[in-house]
Amino acid sequence: MTQLEKALALHEQWRGKLTIESKVKVDSREQLALAYTPGVAEPCKKIRDNRDDVYTYTMKGNTVAVVTDGTAVLGLGDIGPEAGLPVMEGKAVLFKEFAGVDAFPICLATRDTEEIIETVKRIAPGFGGINLEDIAAPRCFEIERRLAEELDIPVFHDDQHGTAIVVLAALINALRVTGKTKEAARVVVNGAGSAGIAISKLLLADGFADVTLCDRAGILEAGMAGINWAQEEMIPLTNPRGLKGGLADAMRGADVFVGVSAPGIVTAEMASSMNQDAICFAMANPVPEIMPDVAKAAGVRVVGTGRSDFPNQINNVLVFPGLFKGALKARTKITDAMKLRAAYAIADLIPEEELSEECIIAQPFDPRVPEAVAQAVMREA
Amino acid sequence: MTQLEKALALHEQWRGKLTIESKVKVDSREQLALAYTPGVAEPCKKIRDNRDDVYTYTMKGNTVAVVTDGTAVLGLGDIGPEAGLPVMEGKAVLFKEFAGVDAFPICLATRDTEEIIETVKRIAPGFGGINLEDIAAPRCFEIERRLAEELDIPVFHDDQHGTAIVVLAALINALRVTGKTKEAARVVVNGAGSAGIAISKLLLADGFADVTLCDRAGILEAGMAGINWAQEEMIPLTNPRGLKGGLADAMRGADVFVGVSAPGIVTAEMASSMNQDAICFAMANPVPEIMPDVAKAAGVRVVGTGRSDFPNQINNVLVFPGLFKGALKARTKITDAMKLRAAYAIADLIPEEELSEECIIAQPFDPRVPEAVAQAVMREA
Repeated sequence: MTQLEKALALHEQWRGKLTIESKVKVDSREQLALAYTPGVAEPCKKIRDNRDDVYTYTMKGNTVAVVTDGTAVLGLGDIGPEAGLPVMEGKAVLFKEFAGVDAFPICLATRDTEEIIETVKRIAPGFGGINLEDIAAPRCFEIERRLAEELDIPVFHDDQHGTAIVVLAALINALRVTGKTKEAARVVVNGAGSAGIAISKLLLADGFADVTLCDRAGILEAGMAGINWAQEEMIPLTNPRGLKGGLADAMRGADVFVGVSAPGIVTAEMASSMNQDAICFAMANPVPEIMPDVAKAAGVRVVGTGRSDFPNQINNVLVFPGLFKGALKARTKITDAMKLRAAYAIADLIPEEELSEECIIAQPFDPRVPEAVAQAVMREA
Repeated sequence: MTQLEKALALHEQWRGKLTIESKVKVDSREQLALAYTPGVAEPCKKIRDNRDDVYTYTMKGNTVAVVTDGTAVLGLGDIGPEAGLPVMEGKAVLFKEFAGVDAFPICLATRDTEEIIETVKRIAPGFGGINLEDIAAPRCFEIERRLAEELDIPVFHDDQHGTAIVVLAALINALRVTGKTKEAARVVVNGAGSAGIAISKLLLADGFADVTLCDRAGILEAGMAGINWAQEEMIPLTNPRGLKGGLADAMRGADVFVGVSAPGIVTAEMASSMNQDAICFAMANPVPEIMPDVAKAAGVRVVGTGRSDFPNQINNVLVFPGLFKGALKARTKITDAMKLRAAYAIADLIPEEELSEECIIAQPFDPRVPEAVAQAVMREA
């Protein structure tokens, strides 16, 4: 049995990776009277009189909705809300196992931006936070922006910001290893979807000065065919040297390549055209934009991927559990300053003497990570 | 500390009566690869290709949404979705503890009929069933009817049908004890809200021939002030002898009183005006329409209440856990025939030799109940 067959067999055996358990044994009339009627009326009345008490007497304060419309699931694309459910369950598993956060999948039978926004707003009273997941760009941007504005709880689109934070964390250490600076480094981000745009924005917010964003059609430029409004917005912020052409043109002389795009699209020639001591994060899954050995042979100094079987796994499981843990504890919305601080907190977990080409980012199971991220969020809040 | 103070203190300590747990330990790269990427893509692809496989590979098939808008919570009325959450958590606890069903609270920030319907439809892909809870009449009728029609999963409004089923179960045995028949018994239902209307309908569906429905303004009649469409619909079905007047007039000579109304509104005089061997279910909570000792002294033969400290506790916890367990297992919508069969299954748990004035219905913690109800639903399905 292959590992993929094993995964399928296990999912059939599990019939759901989550279970909802009672914290309360209800095995006597007295217990029933305390947990249900008539006792339950007491917290209800408290909350009726002071809505904020919902955080004191209910599960809201530690509960996150993992919301998808099933339109951009893994590398599979638009597979529908039911088919997205195994991923949302998996995400909820990671929330619990890594940070003790209760998370519940909400798979929406609509892909309309306004309907998604209004649906999430309507179910929000029972949740302490909203994690948006696997919603296609560009509507994911509008959905997140509006929900963050209109709700009083943290809203976070993990495909954007979880990825951006972990990439920044890895890049901070890769720059330390190579002795480059964010002000001088030339960065190419390939894949102008939700992750690529969020990575570019977060790097800019951190002070990176030269970020060039590419998509299938090449370096983003005004009037490009098929460009969407979210990509359009990035044009004035990126490509300060006015490069023209394709990915190969962008990569020539670049210090950093960040790929959130497609398998194998970076050739050895493109890698070897980069500046010396180049950094290459090839995060397409499961097959990276360029295989680590090929990149290394082409002269790239630091390589990271999304995979666990190579060094430097850049995985947003390092981010979202601790980020929500901190945001829920501090009862705060998530700001750009928190995202930056979280990235530095993750980077700083690797002490200088351990930093190397093969060690720029903590392991997914490093127990210090969620707590460090949570603390970073809470300090900023 | 009183019991109510204790209930409040416990709710503060619990901070939510539910916890979402992972069935899967994710403590190694291999486990992560099976439960999350890349392994999770396999069940996703199966469901993408055959939506029905969502029942095989996810939690959907054993998961119920407990949905409220917070407008008719316990005896507290319209207290809002946040203040309704402790009750919805309690309900979910009972689903799990009594029948092993995973249930999750969804508290809606809307009280608009169409918005509630569309919101529940949009979140339905992740749920195997919908339990509507504490939604005010008459919109609860429209919401349930439409959702039952438009969704392909079971939809059940517990305040209506859970109550109706358990009342019928108790009444079946009360008739056995008193030697009366459903064809001849004169029944008065007081309280023409969601429970009272559903009780009346289920009794009629079972073959009761003489049901009179009263509300605050008296026996329902056409053109009454403040009557709603759902009450209006009941007029041609009820009061076959064309009674006029108030509750006292309806109760004179009646065999059965079913109260889902308000504390203390039935006097000893009204009780003593009933037919001999009368049956009185006074289910207002926590204070019944008439206290059992008063009713007994007035000549009533069988008394039931909603309370655990008197005999014959008529509590819908006897119904909803097993009903959903059966409906989920059989993957069926819930029909009137199932409701009737469930009522008879509950009634039949009391063997003839144990039947008495003080023993017409099983105890809430009788472990046979959920299984008997589930079996009844599955046999009918």
